[in-house]
Amino acid sequence: MDLHTITSPSFLKELNNEQLVELSEDIRRFLIENLSKTGGHIGPNLGVVELTIALHRVFDSPSDKLIWDVGHQSYVHKILTGRASQFDTLRQFKGLCGFPKRNESDHDVWETGHSSTSLSAAMGMAAARDIKKAKNHVIPIIGDGALTGGMALEALNHIGHANTDMVVILNDNEMSIAPNVGALHSMLGRMRTAGKYNKVKDDLEYLLKKVPAVGGKLASTAERVKDSLKYLLVSGMFFEELGFTYLGPIDGHDLEELEDNLQYAKKVGGPVLLHVVTKKGKGFLPAEQDKIGTWHGTGPYKIDTGDLVKSSSKAPSWSGLIAETVRKLARTDERIVAITPAMPVGSKLEGFASEFPNRFYDVGIAEQHATTMSAGLATQDMKPFLAIYSTFLQRAYDQVVHDICRQNLNVFIGIDRSGLVGADGETHQGVFDVAFLRNLPNMVVMMPKDENEGQHMVKTAIDYNGGPIALRYPRGNGLGVEMDDELKALKIGSWEVLREGSDAAILTFGTTIPMAMDAAEKLAENGINSEVVNARFIKPLDEEMLHGIFKRNIPVLTVEEAILQGGFGSAVLEFAHENGYHDAVIDRMGIPDQFIEHGDVAELMDEIHLNSDQIISTVKSQIPEKSQAGYKAL
Amino acid sequence: MDLHTITSPSFLKELNNEQLVELSEDIRRFLIENLSKTGGHIGPNLGVVELTIALHRVFDSPSDKLIWDVGHQSYVHKILTGRASQFDTLRQFKGLCGFPKRNESDHDVWETGHSSTSLSAAMGMAAARDIKKAKNHVIPIIGDGALTGGMALEALNHIGHANTDMVVILNDNEMSIAPNVGALHSMLGRMRTAGKYNKVKDDLEYLLKKVPAVGGKLASTAERVKDSLKYLLVSGMFFEELGFTYLGPIDGHDLEELEDNLQYAKKVGGPVLLHVVTKKGKGFLPAEQDKIGTWHGTGPYKIDTGDLVKSSSKAPSWSGLIAETVRKLARTDERIVAITPAMPVGSKLEGFASEFPNRFYDVGIAEQHATTMSAGLATQDMKPFLAIYSTFLQRAYDQVVHDICRQNLNVFIGIDRSGLVGADGETHQGVFDVAFLRNLPNMVVMMPKDENEGQHMVKTAIDYNGGPIALRYPRGNGLGVEMDDELKALKIGSWEVLREGSDAAILTFGTTIPMAMDAAEKLAENGINSEVVNARFIKPLDEEMLHGIFKRNIPVLTVEEAILQGGFGSAVLEFAHENGYHDAVIDRMGIPDQFIEHGDVAELMDEIHLNSDQIISTVKSQIPEKSQAGYKAL
Repeated sequence: MDLHTITSPSFLKELNNEQLVELSEDIRRFLIENLSKTGGHIGPNLGVVELTIALHRVFDSPSDKLIWDVGHQSYVHKILTGRASQFDTLRQFKGLCGFPKRNESDHDVWETGHSSTSLSAAMGMAAARDIKKAKNHVIPIIGDGALTGGMALEALNHIGHANTDMVVILNDNEMSIAPNVGALHSMLGRMRTAGKYNKVKDDLEYLLKKVPAVGGKLASTAERVKDSLKYLLVSGMFFEELGFTYLGPIDGHDLEELEDNLQYAKKVGGPVLLHVVTKKGKGFLPAEQDKIGTWHGTGPYKIDTGDLVKSSSKAPSWSGLIAETVRKLARTDERIVAITPAMPVGSKLEGFASEFPNRFYDVGIAEQHATTMSAGLATQDMKPFLAIYSTFLQRAYDQVVHDICRQNLNVFIGIDRSGLVGADGETHQGVFDVAFLRNLPNMVVMMPKDENEGQHMVKTAIDYNGGPIALRYPRGNGLGVEMDDELKALKIGSWEVLREGSDAAILTFGTTIPMAMDAAEKLAENGINSEVVNARFIKPLDEEMLHGIFKRNIPVLTVEEAILQGGFGSAVLEFAHENGYHDAVIDRMGIPDQFIEHGDVAELMDEIHLNSDQIISTVKSQIPEKSQAGYKAL
Repeated sequence: MDLHTITSPSFLKELNNEQLVELSEDIRRFLIENLSKTGGHIGPNLGVVELTIALHRVFDSPSDKLIWDVGHQSYVHKILTGRASQFDTLRQFKGLCGFPKRNESDHDVWETGHSSTSLSAAMGMAAARDIKKAKNHVIPIIGDGALTGGMALEALNHIGHANTDMVVILNDNEMSIAPNVGALHSMLGRMRTAGKYNKVKDDLEYLLKKVPAVGGKLASTAERVKDSLKYLLVSGMFFEELGFTYLGPIDGHDLEELEDNLQYAKKVGGPVLLHVVTKKGKGFLPAEQDKIGTWHGTGPYKIDTGDLVKSSSKAPSWSGLIAETVRKLARTDERIVAITPAMPVGSKLEGFASEFPNRFYDVGIAEQHATTMSAGLATQDMKPFLAIYSTFLQRAYDQVVHDICRQNLNVFIGIDRSGLVGADGETHQGVFDVAFLRNLPNMVVMMPKDENEGQHMVKTAIDYNGGPIALRYPRGNGLGVEMDDELKALKIGSWEVLREGSDAAILTFGTTIPMAMDAAEKLAENGINSEVVNARFIKPLDEEMLHGIFKRNIPVLTVEEAILQGGFGSAVLEFAHENGYHDAVIDRMGIPDQFIEHGDVAELMDEIHLNSDQIISTVKSQIPEKSQAGYKAL
């Protein structure tokens, strides 16, 4: 059928099985074709085609609440709720969001991007329903990877105890972004092998008859015998212990089996967990055969060959550069250990992992544990490299405060995807870390101007033994600069003047340096000579250089790809006033007080006026007499 | 024995059982006596006397690593490692810390205060040991309450899978701070009832013989039958599923049983979990009989009667005032739901809970879940009141950013214990929240000057439907001011002039207002008339009032009991420069860039120069000509 004609999922209830199978095929074809042009989360969505159809047939969205954990698997849901026509704008500026979005549709009842929030959200929605004595169903759909996130486990513990009506769908595809790790993963593996409970039921009844009648001497054991048999009967004892009725595992690509089990789950009452086994990438061979997570989310690709359209940049990726430099240093420094919360591929740690398997830990989606485990390593004089995306470091904020900074431990935090990340949008922008790390005692925060300085900063971090040190680096590729052969550590808190100038000083770091240099060139053409400073240490500041600048009494402009409130610019304001430079002219540019949606980074930067033009006009406004004068000599 | 003579735990290995029992009694007597004068965590420590002795006999600290989760139960450990003589200074300024402290002793290998970090720290230490091919043991001791914290569950999942040698002691006292809740708690209850596995073993063998030989048709079921019997044999299948060898439950007050089991656990290899059942408050009747958590941590008390020495303040406690005002409003507003992560007593929500049992949720030690569950409630047009201590809100930072602020949901966060908390020290000071919340789009943050304004702010928060709103309030009691009968909502972002003045403006909020008023009076005596502004909204600022102040071109001093970097004072700096007041004289006072240790709050404030004298000298330095002039008319 023409998916563009869908306006609501209610049509699904009219279709017979044959039509549904046809629809599944149409949806798969649609996804494979559309995402080949826009890119997107192809693997997860191909895996949930039948599951999404079945959910929308059995439940009545939006009065029944479908809550997609992580949310990158909601494309089929978006198609079935009338958004097929917007897929050519997927993840683009002002286009369809790659995650559920409440302002897109009433069927999107919960927004996500980060993992493991669905169960807590569902508990809130179920509580509201119970208080209002309403009758709607609440259905969180959570992957086996997301289940290892601590907050999901906190929620399981509460939901099982609260005993409210809820149908949790465990979408078990044996992978999160990378292949899953951890004991829960092994357990699910055993459960899949054990097969659906119906299969063993017959065998069981035979066994049951042979067990002696319980009584007399054995009375005290009776309850445990019952539990034990229950364990034999249903493989999900782990979930049963937590208070859930466990159903499954079932085939997540068999529409009839899905529908039967969902109908049953809907009737059971109390907390129910339905274990659905799906295949990521189902129906698209390159994605189906993916073993490491390449097809989790991609850019554009060629449908016939399955080749990804390569980035045109010849420069190394930031993740790769940092990870490989850590790897290089690990060859001669046995203290170095790398830790990732489920991002071995994203953080480009595969090389490190294969060269140093005993010094590499992928702990699963568990940022809190990863962070405090790093602290534990540091207490034993190891040098942990914790590679974590800026946005996910938010999950481990208390661990950074309470475990790392407070104990002043030598943990090297590699903050990947710092700054705007583009297509993933507001849930993933790495814009708060400057503000939330700068506030913490003992913390050093730095960001390099290019990949050569980046490799030296890795050396700096490894050599530094004064406490925690964070190295921010952006998503994407470096600038393609020449790389020094020898690594050298930078002096902590030392800035660098990139361009001399006597009229104004632009202080900036990382990704905004090129635009500052560009602006300075253009300002020079207007007779304004701006100094451009690579403020590569966000904490501590280069106080000597700052004193020099303020003593020269020239206006200062700070520029950062980070939230303005409490950010680097505020640190400069604080310095100026603490040191009595009360009449200094200081302006700040950065991310304004709002969440930044998805889109191309350059477009987003223009949208929020974080660009070369704005630098030029701000500096001009700081020295109006020179701006007016133009080329005239002063 | 005289506990003051202990210098190292090695003497324990020489004692026989009778001497050990005597030692236990001596320690209990010591704790009961000393804590009656200083206050402290009496309940948890009386519960672990035998456990701590046994651990120090079986393991060799500090080469074997004893890691105390939360850490408030480390007093016995402190006595046995040579710190008895410092107990008269417990939790006092420059005195013995109430938590493990690495600079106090080599036996304190990990510092805590927040819950649920021990397993991750242990995993880090075990990893370091394995990499170094060392042989030491790693022994985290975690309570059943702390186990429900998400990061502990993340760690269990990893440790069970990593299969490293570790002996986890599950100290099951059926309570965390308040009685425990959640499915894990119920599960542990079943396990305790089932009894030690040895007891059922005999019964079991009888049963086993009756089960038919496995084979033929049943071959596929064989593995599950084995697991099922294992489940019957050992009650800790939940932990076994996660990859642990489960031992117990055993009596945590039986020294021989403890030692036997610890010796066995030490030999097993891989991850072992020993389930130890203890009684909080053991040996002190009032604490033993405590059902709600009163004796978890206390101030001084009378040993003979068990009466707590009452606070002399007649003013209501802040927690009580806020909780009771929420309760009052809940009588006419059915949207209001209260959520606490394991702090029903601390947050004084017992009254709300008993009046509105269906609108009250204690979710256990699970700040992340509590926060996102609140967000879930808000999506359904409920008005969640999330009561959470400032320091523990750090655990839910990402949930505040990603789930609440980003979706701009109407969650009312009651930030209890904001500012310095005193005796609990650096792990518990609530000093970062101003900085980490102010950075977030959509967030409103306020703090009242007294309890009357506090009750109006509750009304403000309940009436506000523009997104998240946080109300900070300190530990301890209000000022004893008169309370209005009728509640009225304040205008969001409106400040209040408490004292007119034309020479300088002191902008402050909450607990620092009295010192600002005091300073202003003294400054007036010196001819300097300071305006004192109750800057009760930290975000948004009162821009109209700020324009007025800056246009008058008087110096400004901001004062806050919160970390300086990125705090309220920085917000004022940002405002001034954003609005072109580049020549404004602005100074800031607050918590400097360091962690603040334990002690009386007034002593701590003096130590960091956050007091009336400092306000006076700063304002004087801002207007030197007037300071010199003294009483002379200008």
